Amino acid sequence: MKKLINNSDNVVRESLEGMAAAHPDLIKVHFDPHFIYRVEAPIPGKVALISGGGSGHEPMHGGFVGLGMLDAACPGEVFTSPTPDQMLEAAKMVTGGAGVLNIVKNYSGDVMNFEMAAELAHSEDILVRNILIDDDIAVKDSLYTQGRRGVGATVLAEKICGAAAQQGYDLKQVANLCRQVNLNGHSMGMALTSCTVPAKGSPTFSLGDDEIESGIGIHGEPGRQRMSLKSADEITEMLAVSIIEDRDYTRTVREWDADKGEWVEQELTDPAFESGDRVLAFVNSMGGTPLSELYIVYRKLAEICEKKKLQIVRNLIGPYITSLDMQGFSITLLKLDDEMIQLWDAPVKTPALRWGI
Amino acid sequence: MKKLINNSDNVVRESLEGMAAAHPDLIKVHFDPHFIYRVEAPIPGKVALISGGGSGHEPMHGGFVGLGMLDAACPGEVFTSPTPDQMLEAAKMVTGGAGVLNIVKNYSGDVMNFEMAAELAHSEDILVRNILIDDDIAVKDSLYTQGRRGVGATVLAEKICGAAAQQGYDLKQVANLCRQVNLNGHSMGMALTSCTVPAKGSPTFSLGDDEIESGIGIHGEPGRQRMSLKSADEITEMLAVSIIEDRDYTRTVREWDADKGEWVEQELTDPAFESGDRVLAFVNSMGGTPLSELYIVYRKLAEICEKKKLQIVRNLIGPYITSLDMQGFSITLLKLDDEMIQLWDAPVKTPALRWGI
Repeated sequence: MKKLINNSDNVVRESLEGMAAAHPDLIKVHFDPHFIYRVEAPIPGKVALISGGGSGHEPMHGGFVGLGMLDAACPGEVFTSPTPDQMLEAAKMVTGGAGVLNIVKNYSGDVMNFEMAAELAHSEDILVRNILIDDDIAVKDSLYTQGRRGVGATVLAEKICGAAAQQGYDLKQVANLCRQVNLNGHSMGMALTSCTVPAKGSPTFSLGDDEIESGIGIHGEPGRQRMSLKSADEITEMLAVSIIEDRDYTRTVREWDADKGEWVEQELTDPAFESGDRVLAFVNSMGGTPLSELYIVYRKLAEICEKKKLQIVRNLIGPYITSLDMQGFSITLLKLDDEMIQLWDAPVKTPALRWGI
Repeated sequence: MKKLINNSDNVVRESLEGMAAAHPDLIKVHFDPHFIYRVEAPIPGKVALISGGGSGHEPMHGGFVGLGMLDAACPGEVFTSPTPDQMLEAAKMVTGGAGVLNIVKNYSGDVMNFEMAAELAHSEDILVRNILIDDDIAVKDSLYTQGRRGVGATVLAEKICGAAAQQGYDLKQVANLCRQVNLNGHSMGMALTSCTVPAKGSPTFSLGDDEIESGIGIHGEPGRQRMSLKSADEITEMLAVSIIEDRDYTRTVREWDADKGEWVEQELTDPAFESGDRVLAFVNSMGGTPLSELYIVYRKLAEICEKKKLQIVRNLIGPYITSLDMQGFSITLLKLDDEMIQLWDAPVKTPALRWGI
């Protein structure tokens, strides 16, 4: 294993120390338990947004802490869920009295620990709502997941809901918006190569010299299919058409009902993409794929969307939710409405996303 | 070779088509000859900034076309100089009557072709000045270079001079500023792995499983030394100290004298870093290195700068001048003055760098 690290035990801490040194105008880092938070937090009267998950997906989530996006991010060890005490301490640090929204990618450990953190916060009179992101259409149930995995839509939800919180939405409104972004957002990825987790020191899985895997998870979880290497156009078409034609995914969503003081469940079904829809097209590098190749993917994606009469009105292209050094990419399409477009365009100032300010 | 491409002959064109599709609000792409240019160009009375070079270093240069940075970028084939006709056509497209500054990385093909393009432009009454960037302290003379190679300082020069042009500096002023940024900026890189050029299909060079190369060029040109893998801290210290302690590099600079109507030469020597200097610290990924590792590097770099009493007042961390899928990084330190800081902070809106707008 060749990596720019000092010791595989310290990669998360040292990377956080580097972030803290690099961006003192935007973020602070709390150690033991670890979380990254906005220098301005707590902001009285603003809903606080928190996300988190295993490290190894940078810039997500720590790179998205700042004005117009997250108030705090809780990084676990590489590909390992953060713990409830991290989430609770982060919530206590950033709550401004208007409640906390946890944006949680659907991996069993993350879900369980964020639920526990929410209950602990409630016992300290901080109202918390958790919204799950489960946008990966590739597979249902996976190595670490019941249902679908949470991937690219997480980045978009953090941006859109971060803007909403900044504009004064209350907790229920931000939560409803986040749920809607999740239902409207669909993703699928693929890998050319495996990633290597520092603590393990060898590739997570192996792919032959002429093999790729479609529908891969961001921790290298099995996807839909191993297949021989194809052209960028063929791969893009395979992913994009799968996303666009995905239909009727229904899951049971478990959310906190503040009035009843208990978790309640409801069934929710994703809306389908329809001719005439406006979409945000997000082409994401898994980490090791050059930008030039992402543009080759985008070229074909734009062509497919045009054919399917989906109007790409916003896009995001680059490494935003990665899997260490994995080569590959994912596509996320998010069906937009006027409100989401306005919130997407709103100013953001974080280490990894910045515009308008 | 596993890459997200369709055909190795078309990677540059298809990637440009993707860029054009993705950023119609910022750039247009002219094909045959290829160049990327600002949608607003030509801007009357503004000095036009052009850069260019071989493809494979994305986002440089095409990703830096837009408000507050470049007016046009001329991409060659992968790791191959663009041609004088590209540069001339780009100059004709973007000149607003106040002259054109070509920012040229010091590689023999780029230098020769940009000089020829300048002469052709002069014969069409477009005044052009070329400023060379030769900031790579690793080696003197290299595979494609007389003198030192141009690397990370190019990105910084494009940002700072782009802001100056936007603020109304005239051609001589922008050229003087660009020359000063180059003299003040020093870089060195290293590689953990080779890159693979699509047309070749196999790694450019080979490194053992436990080997790295310090001082590598952005096309895989030989560096200072092959050595066994070291810790991120050791590598960062090796590069940073080499940069900070570099002294008295002198080269003969050849620039166009508009009054005399000929190329004139002068000797220029880099200033040394001195205790108390304010610097911009740029930690750049060669393409395949995860952001988390760049922060581990930055952590050590900040410590070294503090020890050497260099005050990091601005930074840039990410993949900005890459070598396809190469794993590795480079450090650039640029000695700043008030003028450069103000220009660095000025609004920029390009596909790859954006703030303040």
